[in-house]
Amino acid sequence: MSTLEHPVSAERQVPERPTERREPVFVFTERQTSEKSELARRFLETRSRLNLNVEKVGNFLVKRFYNIDHNAYLEGVLPAKTKELMGLVASACLRCDDCIFYHAIQAYRLGVPRAEQEESLNVALVVGGSIVVPHLRRAYELLEELYS
Amino acid sequence: MSTLEHPVSAERQVPERPTERREPVFVFTERQTSEKSELARRFLETRSRLNLNVEKVGNFLVKRFYNIDHNAYLEGVLPAKTKELMGLVASACLRCDDCIFYHAIQAYRLGVPRAEQEESLNVALVVGGSIVVPHLRRAYELLEELYS
Amino acid sequence: MSTLEHPVSAERQVPERPTERREPVFVFTERQTSEKSELARRFLETRSRLNLNVEKVGNFLVKRFYNIDHNAYLEGVLPAKTKELMGLVASACLRCDDCIFYHAIQAYRLGVPRAEQEESLNVALVVGGSIVVPHLRRAYELLEELYS
Amino acid sequence: MSTLEHPVSAERQVPERPTERREPVFVFTERQTSEKSELARRFLETRSRLNLNVEKVGNFLVKRFYNIDHNAYLEGVLPAKTKELMGLVASACLRCDDCIFYHAIQAYRLGVPRAEQEESLNVALVVGGSIVVPHLRRAYELLEELYS
Amino acid sequence: MSTLEHPVSAERQVPERPTERREPVFVFTERQTSEKSELARRFLETRSRLNLNVEKVGNFLVKRFYNIDHNAYLEGVLPAKTKELMGLVASACLRCDDCIFYHAIQAYRLGVPRAEQEESLNVALVVGGSIVVPHLRRAYELLEELYS
Amino acid sequence: MSTLEHPVSAERQVPERPTERREPVFVFTERQTSEKSELARRFLETRSRLNLNVEKVGNFLVKRFYNIDHNAYLEGVLPAKTKELMGLVASACLRCDDCIFYHAIQAYRLGVPRAEQEESLNVALVVGGSIVVPHLRRAYELLEELYS
Repeated sequence: MSTLEHPVSAERQVPERPTERREPVFVFTERQTSEKSELARRFLETRSRLNLNVEKVGNFLVKRFYNIDHNAYLEGVLPAKTKELMGLVASACLRCDDCIFYHAIQAYRLGVPRAEQEESLNVALVVGGSIVVPHLRRAYELLEELYS
Repeated sequence: MSTLEHPVSAERQVPERPTERREPVFVFTERQTSEKSELARRFLETRSRLNLNVEKVGNFLVKRFYNIDHNAYLEGVLPAKTKELMGLVASACLRCDDCIFYHAIQAYRLGVPRAEQEESLNVALVVGGSIVVPHLRRAYELLEELYS
Repeated sequence: MSTLEHPVSAERQVPERPTERREPVFVFTERQTSEKSELARRFLETRSRLNLNVEKVGNFLVKRFYNIDHNAYLEGVLPAKTKELMGLVASACLRCDDCIFYHAIQAYRLGVPRAEQEESLNVALVVGGSIVVPHLRRAYELLEELYS
Repeated sequence: MSTLEHPVSAERQVPERPTERREPVFVFTERQTSEKSELARRFLETRSRLNLNVEKVGNFLVKRFYNIDHNAYLEGVLPAKTKELMGLVASACLRCDDCIFYHAIQAYRLGVPRAEQEESLNVALVVGGSIVVPHLRRAYELLEELYS
Repeated sequence: MSTLEHPVSAERQVPERPTERREPVFVFTERQTSEKSELARRFLETRSRLNLNVEKVGNFLVKRFYNIDHNAYLEGVLPAKTKELMGLVASACLRCDDCIFYHAIQAYRLGVPRAEQEESLNVALVVGGSIVVPHLRRAYELLEELYS
Repeated sequence: MSTLEHPVSAERQVPERPTERREPVFVFTERQTSEKSELARRFLETRSRLNLNVEKVGNFLVKRFYNIDHNAYLEGVLPAKTKELMGLVASACLRCDDCIFYHAIQAYRLGVPRAEQEESLNVALVVGGSIVVPHLRRAYELLEELYS
């Protein structure tokens, strides 16, 4: 009766793969990032303030979603760096400034060089078209502050 | 270091609300629904076949996502019927035929009358515009088979 | 020669269903809502100001669209409360902050409890993914002001 | 208490503009178009069949939406040809094959030359990006049948 | 091995069509537009400032994309005016305020009358639904300043 | 008077960066891929047939767009493998089956292991939500054929 899962009968049960997800190692803290870039500082501050409000409510499903989201970007088969850049591409294609800022900052904190951020944004630009351009401009403004 | 969650310090930890989610009671089984409607039968069959393939892989994150998705439509503060109709509205706005079929079938199985399905699709039509119309047409074809 | 309608010949003309749509009864006025929440006040004020400008122009098609949109949320087969929450889900999935604020405010004014607004947003979060999260955060900020 | 409209007080009531919308004159009938192109024929047939089903239900809001949609493409300040091409651009950007086919066929029936259809699709391609390409390919297949 | 192109063999190589694209003639400069409308001024200023930053980087692919984008709106088979209005429709459907402002300003600068801008927005409203309304309101505010 | 570019004056002209883009080396040809998977074969065949039709027309702007799209996935600062996976994530988030199949096949042809494809799809699933699930199911069906 589940929503997406078909009831799982015994014979097709598969042993869960070893999942060697690990927390990534950041080169810069959020604080250091905020000191480098005023745009990053303002973004991170607003996000923290609003997240506090969400956490205070303690909604069960939101907590689980946050948790699964956290898991998706851990070190795994693909490096965390690559997955943060994938998050950047997805965010730019779906045209979410907050999400773009978040993943560009995470990638910066992991030590991703600027040229890799730009090349990721190129993929998003070609896939998503000129509608991505206003977001690209704002992303470049952030990158300028972070990497100069 | 989490992705969406800010590290949760002790003082703003909030006791998780009592979560009285329950499995909904279906009026019709998937089999009965398939016997009523050829469109439903074909959809459910394909979906089961493809889901088996996904489950066989046993991807950890996919399993957790399926689980959270299942949870979102349980009886809770809002009735399961209402939430399936919300899923229908969201699916029609985002223009996903498979998702529309899924939620229309779930709503049917829960005993939602046809007029409520139509009124939900009206909200989606007004919010989403004429781009929703081709999906509305196909949804009406399914409703015709299910409710006649 | 119509755009979406096939020319309707006599034999398949169907008597229009009795349409017992009624204006909903609001528990709070817009003014009371504005006094409760600064975020709501600013939103409603900007919206009124811009809508005045639209009305002044008197564009025929815009007027008809506004009219049909108004109709979609009246008391009908489904309660107005439920349809405002459906509007909220659709708005969150389509990631429109103005639309989210509008429907959350309407639901509040109709007496919908906070927990139902949250559960509706959960459906949107699961359907729409993490790209919905920044909008969820801002919605929660509004809910905090409205319901505290 | 309206959804999008603010209650309209007397002093800002504006006389409705003279609205000289007229039905456009088609160069080709749907039948002639179907004889020219097998893709058009199949599309128009399915659309008619499904629309019949929608009309049979006689949903009040759907009828009004169909009506407003019909109005949007009439001869007006802008020629019907231009507006059908705008519908084509919007459909391609929003990636709806049915909508693309519909507007490409309407434009063809109005006597729009192929080169104008292509140039409209170019705008959609640049605005919408490579995600538009699969739809562009299918649109070109239809254009090939219609204009050869 | 190309991404979208199939390797082009000699026999199906087609001589490139004569492409008589020309720069359009503007009735108003950006400066004149900025003097007419404060909203336009602020938009153009921010856009110029951010574009300078993008150009400074000199990313090869971005430059080429900007170039192709520029080409799409030149005088061609369709007048530049029409294509700017198509850009407006696409931008409104995809709900990008910056893009809407850009194309509305370009259309104004080319001498497009206000009524044509409104009728284009009507197409976008019907195709895209009520989710377009907040953007329509802001577009009307700009049009009010530009054309009054 | 350009569309996206501000007129570039001499003093902020920047020397174009050395662009060491190279064609990637494929492990499998399209033919080998088609022999491995029936789903891939059908997809590639349809795509080739429709692309031929597009090429025959020789539209200038389409050709340039195809060219820029080809460039975006070459070996560069980021490996071609990574960029194809980014294309996969973007395609899944934007819910384009053709695009998903294309990039999954390209990644396979470049020697990307299945687990990396799955982990990329996980990012898309979390970013894009349950609306991505029907596409994920079809992607897994393709992966099953390609990698078994």
